[in-house]
Amino acid sequence: MRKIILASASPRRSELLKKAGVSFSVIPAGGEEAITSPMPETAVMQLAQQKAVCVGNTLKNPEEGTLVIGADTVVVYENKILGKPLDKEDAIAVLTRLQGNIHQVYTGVSVLERKNDVWEPHTFAECTDVEFYPVSEKEIRAYAETGEPMDKAGSYGIQGLWGVYVKGIHGDYNNVVGLPVARLLQEMKKLNIELRG
Amino acid sequence: MRKIILASASPRRSELLKKAGVSFSVIPAGGEEAITSPMPETAVMQLAQQKAVCVGNTLKNPEEGTLVIGADTVVVYENKILGKPLDKEDAIAVLTRLQGNIHQVYTGVSVLERKNDVWEPHTFAECTDVEFYPVSEKEIRAYAETGEPMDKAGSYGIQGLWGVYVKGIHGDYNNVVGLPVARLLQEMKKLNIELRG
Repeated sequence: MRKIILASASPRRSELLKKAGVSFSVIPAGGEEAITSPMPETAVMQLAQQKAVCVGNTLKNPEEGTLVIGADTVVVYENKILGKPLDKEDAIAVLTRLQGNIHQVYTGVSVLERKNDVWEPHTFAECTDVEFYPVSEKEIRAYAETGEPMDKAGSYGIQGLWGVYVKGIHGDYNNVVGLPVARLLQEMKKLNIELRG
Repeated sequence: MRKIILASASPRRSELLKKAGVSFSVIPAGGEEAITSPMPETAVMQLAQQKAVCVGNTLKNPEEGTLVIGADTVVVYENKILGKPLDKEDAIAVLTRLQGNIHQVYTGVSVLERKNDVWEPHTFAECTDVEFYPVSEKEIRAYAETGEPMDKAGSYGIQGLWGVYVKGIHGDYNNVVGLPVARLLQEMKKLNIELRG
């Protein structure tokens, strides 16, 4: 069986991949992420590949066929890329801007495939529109107090307590959670790679 | 505190309502559901209200302000309403038609509010478009074998194993799971009813 490594510390990505029936191990990518492009699609693909390469390089004599999956998610509002909040007040400021409006969530996914002793990258990005209902300052503050925003791009978790403020989305839901699993399986199918055990 | 009753046996509806921070008890509606309209929006609103009324009527001397929440979900494809599958082969037939295409999911929600010793109904419906990737016969059969389709409108669970075949949606994700919680909270807000503890 093919060895699959998820290069992400996100428990949400692990859960999504596991639920899809994929067997894998987790090696989080170390180091700082550097956004190198103002274009969200390019930025998330570069960051995802950075993470995958970073983990791929730590493997000693990886077997042929080994896969390393990196992913990165950002939120985009009014042409500005929003990552994880700096602190509670930043989270409140971000959510105050997003409430009552539509924003975009981009997740980049990069799969490195070990082939002829080198890593061959397969990288794509998926975008989902997300619309929030109006949310009061009191509700935003109460949400920030839960701590949920802190490790999340755009300062919210659609699958968590913030879900009650989401009016609707256009695109893939799991992409907003952090990993477009359905698209990932489709992209791998095109390469004759079946991720599911 | 207001007494809230969910008139549904669906564990997914319970989970969504709980995650939203609502405290409630569950009394499943008994009896057969009868689809009385070919219009999905009308049908799910009627069925949701039927369920809520059925449970409301079993309560002895309900306190003023008590709420009973009924809900019903159907899938619509090519103008035909699809409920839960009859058996495994029916589930396979339904999924074979839905794969590679776009269908609609309607959930009707009916909230009965106890006011001046009578039940006052507040009822609405929410629609979400769902698009599936192409899915092979082998994959559909394997999915049917898991038993997951059996208690679900349209024979699939978007939050379950079928999620890997969902290309995207347009609308509320939780509506497809079975309860548009965000809309429910908004509708109650308009009536000055705060569902969350």
